[in-house]
Amino acid sequence: MTLAAAHADSGDTAWLLAATALVLLMTPGLALFYGGMVRAKSVLNMLMMSFVSIALVTVVWLVAGYSLAFTGDLGGGLIGGLIGGLENAGMAGVGPASLHGTVPTLLFATFQLTFAVITAALISGAVADRTRFGAWLVLVPVWTLLVYVPVTHWVWGPGGWIGQKLGALDFAGGLPVEITSGASGLALCLVLGPRLGFKKDAMRPHSLPMVMLGAGLLWFGWFGFNAGSALGANGLAAAAFLNTMAAGCTGLLGWLLVEQKRDGHPTTLGAASGAVAGLVAITPSCGTVSLLGALAVGLAAGVVCSYAVGWKFKLNYDDSLDVVGVHLVGGVIGTLLIGLFADQALTGGARGLLYGGGPGLLGRQLVAVLAVAGYAFAVTYGLGRLLDRTIGLRASEEEERTGLDLTVHAETAYDHGVLGHGAPVRKAESPV
Amino acid sequence: MTLAAAHADSGDTAWLLAATALVLLMTPGLALFYGGMVRAKSVLNMLMMSFVSIALVTVVWLVAGYSLAFTGDLGGGLIGGLIGGLENAGMAGVGPASLHGTVPTLLFATFQLTFAVITAALISGAVADRTRFGAWLVLVPVWTLLVYVPVTHWVWGPGGWIGQKLGALDFAGGLPVEITSGASGLALCLVLGPRLGFKKDAMRPHSLPMVMLGAGLLWFGWFGFNAGSALGANGLAAAAFLNTMAAGCTGLLGWLLVEQKRDGHPTTLGAASGAVAGLVAITPSCGTVSLLGALAVGLAAGVVCSYAVGWKFKLNYDDSLDVVGVHLVGGVIGTLLIGLFADQALTGGARGLLYGGGPGLLGRQLVAVLAVAGYAFAVTYGLGRLLDRTIGLRASEEEERTGLDLTVHAETAYDHGVLGHGAPVRKAESPV
Amino acid sequence: MTLAAAHADSGDTAWLLAATALVLLMTPGLALFYGGMVRAKSVLNMLMMSFVSIALVTVVWLVAGYSLAFTGDLGGGLIGGLIGGLENAGMAGVGPASLHGTVPTLLFATFQLTFAVITAALISGAVADRTRFGAWLVLVPVWTLLVYVPVTHWVWGPGGWIGQKLGALDFAGGLPVEITSGASGLALCLVLGPRLGFKKDAMRPHSLPMVMLGAGLLWFGWFGFNAGSALGANGLAAAAFLNTMAAGCTGLLGWLLVEQKRDGHPTTLGAASGAVAGLVAITPSCGTVSLLGALAVGLAAGVVCSYAVGWKFKLNYDDSLDVVGVHLVGGVIGTLLIGLFADQALTGGARGLLYGGGPGLLGRQLVAVLAVAGYAFAVTYGLGRLLDRTIGLRASEEEERTGLDLTVHAETAYDHGVLGHGAPVRKAESPV
Repeated sequence: MTLAAAHADSGDTAWLLAATALVLLMTPGLALFYGGMVRAKSVLNMLMMSFVSIALVTVVWLVAGYSLAFTGDLGGGLIGGLIGGLENAGMAGVGPASLHGTVPTLLFATFQLTFAVITAALISGAVADRTRFGAWLVLVPVWTLLVYVPVTHWVWGPGGWIGQKLGALDFAGGLPVEITSGASGLALCLVLGPRLGFKKDAMRPHSLPMVMLGAGLLWFGWFGFNAGSALGANGLAAAAFLNTMAAGCTGLLGWLLVEQKRDGHPTTLGAASGAVAGLVAITPSCGTVSLLGALAVGLAAGVVCSYAVGWKFKLNYDDSLDVVGVHLVGGVIGTLLIGLFADQALTGGARGLLYGGGPGLLGRQLVAVLAVAGYAFAVTYGLGRLLDRTIGLRASEEEERTGLDLTVHAETAYDHGVLGHGAPVRKAESPV
Repeated sequence: MTLAAAHADSGDTAWLLAATALVLLMTPGLALFYGGMVRAKSVLNMLMMSFVSIALVTVVWLVAGYSLAFTGDLGGGLIGGLIGGLENAGMAGVGPASLHGTVPTLLFATFQLTFAVITAALISGAVADRTRFGAWLVLVPVWTLLVYVPVTHWVWGPGGWIGQKLGALDFAGGLPVEITSGASGLALCLVLGPRLGFKKDAMRPHSLPMVMLGAGLLWFGWFGFNAGSALGANGLAAAAFLNTMAAGCTGLLGWLLVEQKRDGHPTTLGAASGAVAGLVAITPSCGTVSLLGALAVGLAAGVVCSYAVGWKFKLNYDDSLDVVGVHLVGGVIGTLLIGLFADQALTGGARGLLYGGGPGLLGRQLVAVLAVAGYAFAVTYGLGRLLDRTIGLRASEEEERTGLDLTVHAETAYDHGVLGHGAPVRKAESPV
Repeated sequence: MTLAAAHADSGDTAWLLAATALVLLMTPGLALFYGGMVRAKSVLNMLMMSFVSIALVTVVWLVAGYSLAFTGDLGGGLIGGLIGGLENAGMAGVGPASLHGTVPTLLFATFQLTFAVITAALISGAVADRTRFGAWLVLVPVWTLLVYVPVTHWVWGPGGWIGQKLGALDFAGGLPVEITSGASGLALCLVLGPRLGFKKDAMRPHSLPMVMLGAGLLWFGWFGFNAGSALGANGLAAAAFLNTMAAGCTGLLGWLLVEQKRDGHPTTLGAASGAVAGLVAITPSCGTVSLLGALAVGLAAGVVCSYAVGWKFKLNYDDSLDVVGVHLVGGVIGTLLIGLFADQALTGGARGLLYGGGPGLLGRQLVAVLAVAGYAFAVTYGLGRLLDRTIGLRASEEEERTGLDLTVHAETAYDHGVLGHGAPVRKAESPV
């Protein structure tokens, strides 16, 4: 992620263009993944939380976020490594000819923008079905500036304390994407309280095919996310690509194995969740661990997360669509396991415990995890409480009971009429 | 769009291969976007109108369309700049080694083919639910040859009067794609008359998640459409990419702001429509305006189009899925605003009023808009009347009432049986 | 498919990275294509058969499949050209810097992996709705090792007897992908017997929009499949891309023409099936035939396959979703027609009968088709019988009647509750 060359490479640029489009598709994919999981009365609100995140984060990113994350550190001394400057605010000073390594800076900024977008959208899974839409519109840009942008600077920014001073590794976003969204989701769950009927009603997914479609689009886009993070079309991108494939697969298998053993049947929801858990965990490590490491990371995430999604019932936080159980837990697993599986062939230096290194890297990874999770949780908890006390964070009981689609958006998701569905006809006089 | 180099560039080719696949995906995406918006009794016919457009336009394009659009001008004198020749008809003379700039000519021709495909498909939104399928099969190839191909030659062909003589700018298809489809949709609405029940029945979208899925795929593909139009993997492509992202976002926000203020609730249909409006408007301008310009173009389109879709109720033309309100109006906005926001850093010369240029560019953009809109409207209106009087353009009242799916295609979209839909219940005791 | 260069090309790598992601997306696309075609009571099981194939084939491929398919031939003499060696088992000896031609070997291996994945998944269409899920979990990895891997070595491996000794042509997988899956599907149909109600009940697709979505994603991904097989971003990739587009289109038109003439109405299922038939047939030939050849190959496949899908009713094998009628028949058509349409401009040497060559190439194609179809059928039939007699291949009558979703996975696909289906609440006691 450092400026390494003074000339553009059209092949590197071609891959990053494609990868950026792939990552952008992940957010509509996530919208469907989440939308299929909720009940039919609030699927549109779920979709909207993702789609407005695209728009809101983009504006914030272009105005200030990119500059604060990726330009020269704001200052030395006390705040060294904490936040970037404003010299590229509004993308000032960045033209079509500006380069970041071998690719246009405008493209690098757009690639990173798509990461910021999906990170905010991920949080919506934790707060599904009971959050005021107006509060979400405020939360997303503020959260992006207060949490996503600084953590990204810590990890990938010039002079960032985690990436460049501490020396922890994160190839494609275990810290800024998975752990921040997971920890923030947990914070907001605690502020909001559980959905009406939590632990009483079934709250089954209203469309599992939609969940599987979303999972497919997410997996597809994840190749752009992870292999695109090589910022070039080369062997490192290829290794990250294959590791991403491998970990998604063992994540899927691990989750299904647990289900079969524990519940007696492997489910599609488990297959989708396991694949996502594996992909989450391999995100930080895809460009740093060996293939064997990737298989292990995915398997570990699939198995552990398949249990972690049950914690909410014991500990009484309603992480509705398992952002904590999958993204926080999976992100922590993947970030820590770098300390075991880091492979010099990919990192160019750092080695994990099992690859001839000492315990130092594992320790640095742990410090990074604790710092990012703690920071994201604390800031988001404070922000959530502030919103709750001012504009109000939680929808009314009446809205929640009726469903947010009708009460907030004045729409319902489906109007299939009677075709293929038998009686009763919606309107007596309607020919449909 | 001129031949600029004698050697191939694998990076440029790589991006254009990916971009071409992306644009092809837009037509299935559009099919779902439109299919979700119609009632359940005619969703299959809606999907079919797009899918057969892929096939019909491809054949016409390969046989003659590409050659007429993109080869040397047919003649001097009176018809100079109006239409190309037939020397590449049937792709004669174009082999795997032929180059267009730095990319294979076969690839350039395929990229342009995908534009022709979606342009024809776009029109289906204006004539939804009441057009004879057989007439559509005739309309699409004839319209492509009579409207799409000449306008493309005017704008992008060698010697084309708009692109090379008038000097109006259109980076990715405001004129040949957005304005021709919008103006032609309007013409056909007038020929066809409104749907049964227009302004009386609600005609709600039968599946808004399908609309959002379609919108997501369209947005994803649009990056190929716009950034691919740079015909290379470079800084211009990166700028077009980011501008596309920016305008889609402000389009979405603009539409939702109007909805919130006017109707009291932001809808998912509005979010999808606003994003598309912004993307339409940035299509001509993505490679010619500054980032600030892109944000303004998208916002203007989102706001204006959110009102423009209501004109049909006042003026009594049944533009069923708002092709006029979004594509014609959005296309005009984006093409004209180049006259204000054209940035020398991207155009390499031309400057808009707000970027140090005079009013000349705005005037040229206006001439191009009027010429293309007028030509497309007039030819399509004549073609529509001709079809209506010969083979018949409008489905029978019985077909329309029952739905085109069953009457034309002998299918219904959904046959969910009883699962999750009530009677007859599979098991007497089942709560599902 | 041979090592041709000692230096990496970032443009070639960029296209292959994108192409690999595209091919991976085909399997979720196939899952939806198949899932929409079955009844609502077994859509999840259908989706699961594809998703677990991704995971199972990936593991098998990395452990041994890639090495057996693509490394130096295991031995001379009797088994020369039949199977590769194990020196790259577990991807041993392949690092980020290893090259295959101008692209990283890790990427080539991943690209080929995505082919193996979808080939196994294709078979699920033939055995839909009545196969024990546990047996499928065994079948997929064993079948991949016994059928897919050897045939791939024959066709594309170093020293493979079909590709390098016989000299038959297969650009992107008519033999290893289409013909093996089709012949194996036939074998398993015969072992399994027909579904309950075959030829009596309608068994209509439960969601044709889902089928069309799947078809759209398949077509999109197929560009990666076919044009990616050029292993570079060049004129050959461009030709393969355009041929893929052309044949999909004439396949679609051919199928609809037959339907219109034979049945009186063109259907969406026919449009999707015709496009897929054309795409199947052009897979082996996309990089070897002229554009005219591609149009003819697609048309032939569309017409012939539209009849071939009816054979099962006459011959009494329940090829549920027409894997035999589309993939076996289409694959044979496309592989054989290379013997007529092979164009020296693309092959660099071989010429078909209609392009100045003799009947020799057609003969070689025929030998390859017979060998691969016969081998795949025989091995799969034996494997199916073995599984049937040991762990059991067929689901119980009760499971099949109730649907595999509920009985195997303890889930149902949809739980739309009452929204949009006749408010207010359907049952007073409903918790939703």
